[in-house]
Amino acid sequence: MDNNQVTIHDIAAILKIDSSTVSRALNNSPRVAKKTKDKILKKAAELGYQRNHLASNLRKSKNFTLGVIVPRISRHFFSTAIAGIEETAFKAGYTVIICQSLESFEREKSIVETLLANRVDGVLISISMETKNYDHLLGLKQRNIPYVFFDRHCNINENSNVLIDDFDAAFNATQHLIDQKSTTIAHFAGPQNLEIYKNRFKGYKSALEKNNIVFKEELVFTSSLMENDGKLNVQKMMNLSYKIDGLFCANDVIAIGAIKYLKEINIKIPEDIAIVGFSNESISSVIEPALSTINQPGLEIGVAATELLIAKITNEGEKLKNETIIIKTSLIERKSSLRNS
Amino acid sequence: MDNNQVTIHDIAAILKIDSSTVSRALNNSPRVAKKTKDKILKKAAELGYQRNHLASNLRKSKNFTLGVIVPRISRHFFSTAIAGIEETAFKAGYTVIICQSLESFEREKSIVETLLANRVDGVLISISMETKNYDHLLGLKQRNIPYVFFDRHCNINENSNVLIDDFDAAFNATQHLIDQKSTTIAHFAGPQNLEIYKNRFKGYKSALEKNNIVFKEELVFTSSLMENDGKLNVQKMMNLSYKIDGLFCANDVIAIGAIKYLKEINIKIPEDIAIVGFSNESISSVIEPALSTINQPGLEIGVAATELLIAKITNEGEKLKNETIIIKTSLIERKSSLRNS
Repeated sequence: MDNNQVTIHDIAAILKIDSSTVSRALNNSPRVAKKTKDKILKKAAELGYQRNHLASNLRKSKNFTLGVIVPRISRHFFSTAIAGIEETAFKAGYTVIICQSLESFEREKSIVETLLANRVDGVLISISMETKNYDHLLGLKQRNIPYVFFDRHCNINENSNVLIDDFDAAFNATQHLIDQKSTTIAHFAGPQNLEIYKNRFKGYKSALEKNNIVFKEELVFTSSLMENDGKLNVQKMMNLSYKIDGLFCANDVIAIGAIKYLKEINIKIPEDIAIVGFSNESISSVIEPALSTINQPGLEIGVAATELLIAKITNEGEKLKNETIIIKTSLIERKSSLRNS
Repeated sequence: MDNNQVTIHDIAAILKIDSSTVSRALNNSPRVAKKTKDKILKKAAELGYQRNHLASNLRKSKNFTLGVIVPRISRHFFSTAIAGIEETAFKAGYTVIICQSLESFEREKSIVETLLANRVDGVLISISMETKNYDHLLGLKQRNIPYVFFDRHCNINENSNVLIDDFDAAFNATQHLIDQKSTTIAHFAGPQNLEIYKNRFKGYKSALEKNNIVFKEELVFTSSLMENDGKLNVQKMMNLSYKIDGLFCANDVIAIGAIKYLKEINIKIPEDIAIVGFSNESISSVIEPALSTINQPGLEIGVAATELLIAKITNEGEKLKNETIIIKTSLIERKSSLRNS
């Protein structure tokens, strides 16, 4: 084994203990028992482990800059999450630079390269709708730059995430439509390569099952959830032989597109079709009828993700610990779904 | 004169011609007459002018990154301007990094430092409400990094700007209120250290004068134009002895705050008070009554500013040319000001 290449992971694998414990022991942390520490130090010496001073130094020459990658800054959820990020970063002395993937995988890739070139200290990322593999994030891992996913994450266990419970929120939204006497409920779903939209779909399906409503594949319309998709989906939906009386949308933007078009063709909301969206865009409380939706606390998510990221940046010994924080959501009931009011 | 320090500006000053002409001549541009070119080359040799190769080389090691500094990404105008910036930058192969000053001069300063450390190729900037001096931009100038102001600029002639005609837009907004039979018109003004708000105030004042309406200092309320300022200003306004029947606001956000509070206290819009805002936020077309406003074409402004910046980055010979591009605005008439409809 080439001495220069012995890592804490090698030591951890040989001793069958966590890399984080090895890291702590080598950093002389009081949180590691004397006995374990001795064992680790002995093995490290034996293998000729040398702390990667170059990496260490690089890590220490901080720029005090955090990179943020979001699909779109103009979405209410992302702009409030960014407000939480800025607030928390500023308090800790970091400047925030924001980049938009605009839902393009290619752009997301080149943004990661730009952030690497700019030697940011850490990255907060919510992936694009097109992102199906995560090789472009390897550069961050290799250079030891911590990153935290928020909202749109990928299904890799070893990452740090700040999320909401999309399944649970979608279940509640659908249950609410059922409580409001909807029996044939359509779902405007998002791209199923993203965990969040997969889980919203699952929550919808599960609420139907729990209420003994037969799930029908034809009532699910998948798109990239833009306003115009709302109109297109309603047109397709109206061509079906089912009498649809409830609609759960995976975001507010497509729900607003649907409402505008349903009004044009004189379908009454909520009498004919009750509608619930997702994310609580600012416009949702002002359109007529106001849109029921899931409140996704962007500010809180931004704060939690930034706190987690800064902890990973500053606490070298802890940086291998990955955790997932779940932030609570709530259903906001407005006119678009309330038949009894 | 130290030879190393002779710049094209020195040559320009001595010969009493434009720096841009000197630059073109030294770059052997066909756009400079043979006679002028000879004169410039002679003087350059005489003074011992040496092209700054270091700066030249630095300029050539491009990152293909543009930095954008805006007060707030959540404002409709800025998010549409950013959309225009992204679109234009992407076509030219640049990645865009966005930073928010959140109206703080301190933050704006540290953002400029961050962008400098990140070696961006150019900067698009719309200054904060607190910004009263521009020393923090000197670092960009010294390192030969071009920058273009959009919307919120500073009153230095030698800069490049993409602006709207704020005076003209404000004049039209106020004239419209007068046409709608308002005779006592208040103005909710923005911070007067910013050129844009100064010009909106001047446009308002000029329209009054043109219509022989006496300008009254007491009817002008200056604030940082947040939604809550709308309520506070209305409260102050209602304590005056004047019967105010028209209101021109320097942005939509404060106008919306005013509308919400006026409705609470049962003042009828537009019957009692006709209102016009500025910028056309998305929410302005949906609130009741819909807000008349100035359409500030963000997308177009973003595109023009980016084209200008990229021209300055890529066209070394032209980079000293500073110009100001004015983008046309229009008045959008909605219910909040239309008394005859």
